[in-house]
Amino acid sequence: MRRRHHSAMASPLTLHDDRLFPADPGTREVARRIYATTRELPIISPHGHVPPRWIARNEHFGNPTKLLLTPDHYINRVLHANGVELSELGVGRGDEMTEADNRRAFRLLCEHWADFNGTAMRYWLVDQLVGIFGVDVRPSAATADTIYDTIAARIDEPDFRPRQLMDAFRIEFLATTDDPCDDLGLHAELAADGEFSARHRVVPTFRPDRYLEPARPDWNELVDALGAAAGVDVGTLDGYTQAMAERRRYFKAHGAVSSDHSHADLVTLILDHDEAARLYDRARRGRATADEALALRRHLFTDQARLACEDGLTMTVHPAVVRNHDAGAFARYGADVGGDIPAKLEATRGLQQLLNAYGNDPNLNLVLFTLDEDVYSRELAPLAAWYRSVYIGVPWWFVDAPESIMRFKQDVTEMAGFSRISGMVDDTRAFCSIPARHDMSRRLDAAHLAGLVTAHRLDEDEALDQARALVVDNPTRIFKLGR
Amino acid sequence: MRRRHHSAMASPLTLHDDRLFPADPGTREVARRIYATTRELPIISPHGHVPPRWIARNEHFGNPTKLLLTPDHYINRVLHANGVELSELGVGRGDEMTEADNRRAFRLLCEHWADFNGTAMRYWLVDQLVGIFGVDVRPSAATADTIYDTIAARIDEPDFRPRQLMDAFRIEFLATTDDPCDDLGLHAELAADGEFSARHRVVPTFRPDRYLEPARPDWNELVDALGAAAGVDVGTLDGYTQAMAERRRYFKAHGAVSSDHSHADLVTLILDHDEAARLYDRARRGRATADEALALRRHLFTDQARLACEDGLTMTVHPAVVRNHDAGAFARYGADVGGDIPAKLEATRGLQQLLNAYGNDPNLNLVLFTLDEDVYSRELAPLAAWYRSVYIGVPWWFVDAPESIMRFKQDVTEMAGFSRISGMVDDTRAFCSIPARHDMSRRLDAAHLAGLVTAHRLDEDEALDQARALVVDNPTRIFKLGR
Amino acid sequence: MRRRHHSAMASPLTLHDDRLFPADPGTREVARRIYATTRELPIISPHGHVPPRWIARNEHFGNPTKLLLTPDHYINRVLHANGVELSELGVGRGDEMTEADNRRAFRLLCEHWADFNGTAMRYWLVDQLVGIFGVDVRPSAATADTIYDTIAARIDEPDFRPRQLMDAFRIEFLATTDDPCDDLGLHAELAADGEFSARHRVVPTFRPDRYLEPARPDWNELVDALGAAAGVDVGTLDGYTQAMAERRRYFKAHGAVSSDHSHADLVTLILDHDEAARLYDRARRGRATADEALALRRHLFTDQARLACEDGLTMTVHPAVVRNHDAGAFARYGADVGGDIPAKLEATRGLQQLLNAYGNDPNLNLVLFTLDEDVYSRELAPLAAWYRSVYIGVPWWFVDAPESIMRFKQDVTEMAGFSRISGMVDDTRAFCSIPARHDMSRRLDAAHLAGLVTAHRLDEDEALDQARALVVDNPTRIFKLGR
Repeated sequence: MRRRHHSAMASPLTLHDDRLFPADPGTREVARRIYATTRELPIISPHGHVPPRWIARNEHFGNPTKLLLTPDHYINRVLHANGVELSELGVGRGDEMTEADNRRAFRLLCEHWADFNGTAMRYWLVDQLVGIFGVDVRPSAATADTIYDTIAARIDEPDFRPRQLMDAFRIEFLATTDDPCDDLGLHAELAADGEFSARHRVVPTFRPDRYLEPARPDWNELVDALGAAAGVDVGTLDGYTQAMAERRRYFKAHGAVSSDHSHADLVTLILDHDEAARLYDRARRGRATADEALALRRHLFTDQARLACEDGLTMTVHPAVVRNHDAGAFARYGADVGGDIPAKLEATRGLQQLLNAYGNDPNLNLVLFTLDEDVYSRELAPLAAWYRSVYIGVPWWFVDAPESIMRFKQDVTEMAGFSRISGMVDDTRAFCSIPARHDMSRRLDAAHLAGLVTAHRLDEDEALDQARALVVDNPTRIFKLGR
Repeated sequence: MRRRHHSAMASPLTLHDDRLFPADPGTREVARRIYATTRELPIISPHGHVPPRWIARNEHFGNPTKLLLTPDHYINRVLHANGVELSELGVGRGDEMTEADNRRAFRLLCEHWADFNGTAMRYWLVDQLVGIFGVDVRPSAATADTIYDTIAARIDEPDFRPRQLMDAFRIEFLATTDDPCDDLGLHAELAADGEFSARHRVVPTFRPDRYLEPARPDWNELVDALGAAAGVDVGTLDGYTQAMAERRRYFKAHGAVSSDHSHADLVTLILDHDEAARLYDRARRGRATADEALALRRHLFTDQARLACEDGLTMTVHPAVVRNHDAGAFARYGADVGGDIPAKLEATRGLQQLLNAYGNDPNLNLVLFTLDEDVYSRELAPLAAWYRSVYIGVPWWFVDAPESIMRFKQDVTEMAGFSRISGMVDDTRAFCSIPARHDMSRRLDAAHLAGLVTAHRLDEDEALDQARALVVDNPTRIFKLGR
Repeated sequence: MRRRHHSAMASPLTLHDDRLFPADPGTREVARRIYATTRELPIISPHGHVPPRWIARNEHFGNPTKLLLTPDHYINRVLHANGVELSELGVGRGDEMTEADNRRAFRLLCEHWADFNGTAMRYWLVDQLVGIFGVDVRPSAATADTIYDTIAARIDEPDFRPRQLMDAFRIEFLATTDDPCDDLGLHAELAADGEFSARHRVVPTFRPDRYLEPARPDWNELVDALGAAAGVDVGTLDGYTQAMAERRRYFKAHGAVSSDHSHADLVTLILDHDEAARLYDRARRGRATADEALALRRHLFTDQARLACEDGLTMTVHPAVVRNHDAGAFARYGADVGGDIPAKLEATRGLQQLLNAYGNDPNLNLVLFTLDEDVYSRELAPLAAWYRSVYIGVPWWFVDAPESIMRFKQDVTEMAGFSRISGMVDDTRAFCSIPARHDMSRRLDAAHLAGLVTAHRLDEDEALDQARALVVDNPTRIFKLGR
């Protein structure tokens, strides 16, 4: 009977206006009213991974697979788990995908549609398929080609370019993520376009991870490049530090509001200057032991907080992921394709040296993300409810999903309140998912606040103010976006 | 007033048709419709602890205490905590319990009825008492004897034998758990009974834990016995490995679909052959240090995955319990009576060696269970949403309870989807609780899916298909049950 | 528009009779009925931090800031995070706050009112402001002075003294927390007041932490003082142990029912007598290494359990907080002002030595608290569902908040049942918040039990009995309060 139903005619695909709202009708009514006041607000995206070239050159998005599938490692990893080769999806191929390849890849996604039941990826996809592309049939083997054609036609429309979409999506602020040696020419181009930049800010983010990891085999070359980019001799730690400060200054001059950091742990360490200089020297000569390289990395990471106290860039920290866990996939497809797995996080003791030195500095904002949910109520909320610099980053990556976000809200708000939460950070390279993600966040804000109203813990007018603050005030304040 | 109420007449004991469904009436309606499509489906129980003798000999269950109380370490431990001696319940006694002993034991349970308020054990008990035995009064000191009599009479009925109950319970597939040296004669008897085996499969499970722990004082004897059972000289590691492979083959020939594993941690290790052989040799001569024994155990456990890639047995892993935590109780009552306490689990780094070697092997299915709920979203869902072999085991033992199962569903589904979840595994030796446990699971599937429908994250026809898949397709696929 | 609304007239502040109840109307009805049976029951507060002097001398509470703000480190830490200096709130000042200072401090709280949205602190504050002080406007800059005046007037009323409030709040039993060397004169005064003590028991709690930490720089002086207080020569470990036993006896003679313990970990250790005596000797001579001091602390803490088996004092344990995490704030303001951050907890292995020795002793009650929520279902519920001495402490400090308490209930009840839970422990020094906290607890008991009734897991009459047991029977039994 299931099969007959599915083959007789395609099932409809719809986007319900009440999606993600609480089941209880009374609470749902409150959620609707709250959401009505935030749904049309502009999008502020203070951390993400959209390539600046797309916007600077206003590039055509290519085709449905190239737009929605190949670059989305959330979707790819689920397909991989269910037996699809990443190369079939266009990942890590030497060659260009043909039209037939792209259709085949897209069909794989549609065939595996039920494997996404209940996932956040499905939620975002439906929002895009219906809301942006006007698709009205459920993905399946039978409907794959029709859907592909519908999307392809939309992509070819003249208003379907990054800059036009930024208007349509009401993206007011968008941060990209960039290498410290990047000349930021694309950002300069965008800033120079007065007509565009009157309506949108597209700014870089300083991402120095690789330059802080002396254990990397390519660290010396990276540091040399950093010195060259900064025009500073990096032969000593002082030179290296000066080069870092200079590149941060350069980023800030190009609009950057934050630096982003992701290391395997969150241990901070402040070595005395001579010891740090000695380790730097050993690392530069390739003689640092594993322990020394680790100590130096922790010191250099902590030193970014010191620099942030000086230049005021907000620090976002995304720690404790074992990158490229699957060595075979890494060898075949390279980094960032899906084989990353989170690990336990410890912040209380790990952050103590950084926080004792800079934790209440009025110029430092430190936004802490985690994939380890146990840390929310145990460490992040108490830290953010004491240290002035500490803010709690919203759920990210594996935990950026509706139920998980509700857990987060319930875990941190009761101790830290709303003022210590980062506001929505989409952290995505999937351009068309940006409005879906921010809309999901606003719906869940409304759902959570409606729950507080129904439990008589907050008045409705307070909930309306709070909802707006989460969308506008918190990111503006925490990422210092006031012009 | 309470006392008057209780003594005036016994309170009724009922089984509500809506039990465990969501409170919101709209969501409850959806849950009812979903559950209606799965409630009558046959039971597939791919991992459990029912003694095969019960079924092979179609044994009489004895009496209410022997059936429901003495062997149930979930119930026993709560009674123990509340001051009851295990020996009063029939555990670890040298002598046979008399009728008076059994009645007294059963009365203890009834007297402590309120101590089970809110527990999973109470839920299962009520389901059995009302649904199987027709009990209609709440257990208490006053009703204990009546209830005992009611159950005893039912046990004595001719259709109340394991094989007849398997029909009544619609148990289609049942795996027992067996020692690698077991000759599986009882399973052979069952398979040879064409009339029975046309309707039911009762298969063994290969449980080699003890043979993989060189630190055990009896390890050398166990390995000798393994060699004897396999007819292989286990004087060297190669012989040991050959014996293991041979016994796995023997189990598979007798219908086994999986091996089951439970060690104190989930650290995997692949030693090079010479080093492993050297450690094996030292362990056989009783000279392995604690560290060497641990390394060898990790290597031998990891080697089971290699063997599984060859013979295709699914691996279920139940790690990180401190067994026999209470040394005094262990000395008095022996193992598995209740004094086991879970510990933290780490899977991301621990499993890396195994997964890098075999994690995407098309012949390996690795079902990971945990008692550490923090691991669900942090490690298990991301692992299962990448590695093709990895599946997430449903909540087990201490966390096999309604609210906990809902947390599990919400924790893992959003990243890994439903296709990466094992489906119901009851893991029980309490024969009469099997239908209650599977029914509970189906009710919670319906509750969870209804929530997704009400939040407009899934259409109802998709939820119906998904509910069926969780009961039928997932275990059939993951445990390779297709004949 | 928001601003207009706020300035046009003050928003009302109200206390809804259904606060914290479930959203679903049917479940809410059940919760109302359950709560109606417990709301008027007397308060039993078996662990807290109210200074005994307040009650003994029946002191005037001073002013709103001194009563509600300066001593409340929950509120202070959120204000600190949001930029307020603790000294502005009256913390750690050498001088006395003037009337103007107090008004300014109270205004800071009112100005930051929205920073408390969604927090437990706001919930308790509203309950006090409306319920105790009759405030009917929402705190803000505009209303701060009016509210201050309203509260100040109430404080000055003759019935607003600790003893009168104990009657008004129906506080039947209140435990303070006291130093082992305290002469307990204030408690003796209270006990001697027959009129007062006929209606209230105010008892001390033995809190020996500092005396068990040989790593403290002042440990030798503390031990000397202990010896002097006990009249025992503490030159040897045996003398020290005798002094401890003597002071425990002294506390018990003054009404104490429990000892309270908070160390950085929960590792227990029983050294053999000679080794312990040797470490004690080294520590007394200032020669213990850090490892030796740690081992000795673990041994001495474990020995408190042995003493408890003898004298029957219940042990409450609040482990795993990094105290004074912010070294700068500690230097400026001293201990206990807010810079404490929780850390991971491990209980399963850590407690094994203590539990193997004393875990089933009929005279020992051990109440385990945690700030690490992952431990609830993984360790605390299984431990309490086996060992007769182990009880699970309700959420404490950072996790003593409505959503968090509901998580706790759902995490532990399904395995351990209600009989193994401590009952409400407010752990507070904020005197006027005591009824709000206990009321919150009873509302959440009702909400949780109503959920079980609606899910048909418990009959309503059972839920009523259970609600009463949580408020009365559990603390009476676990803290041995029967006279």
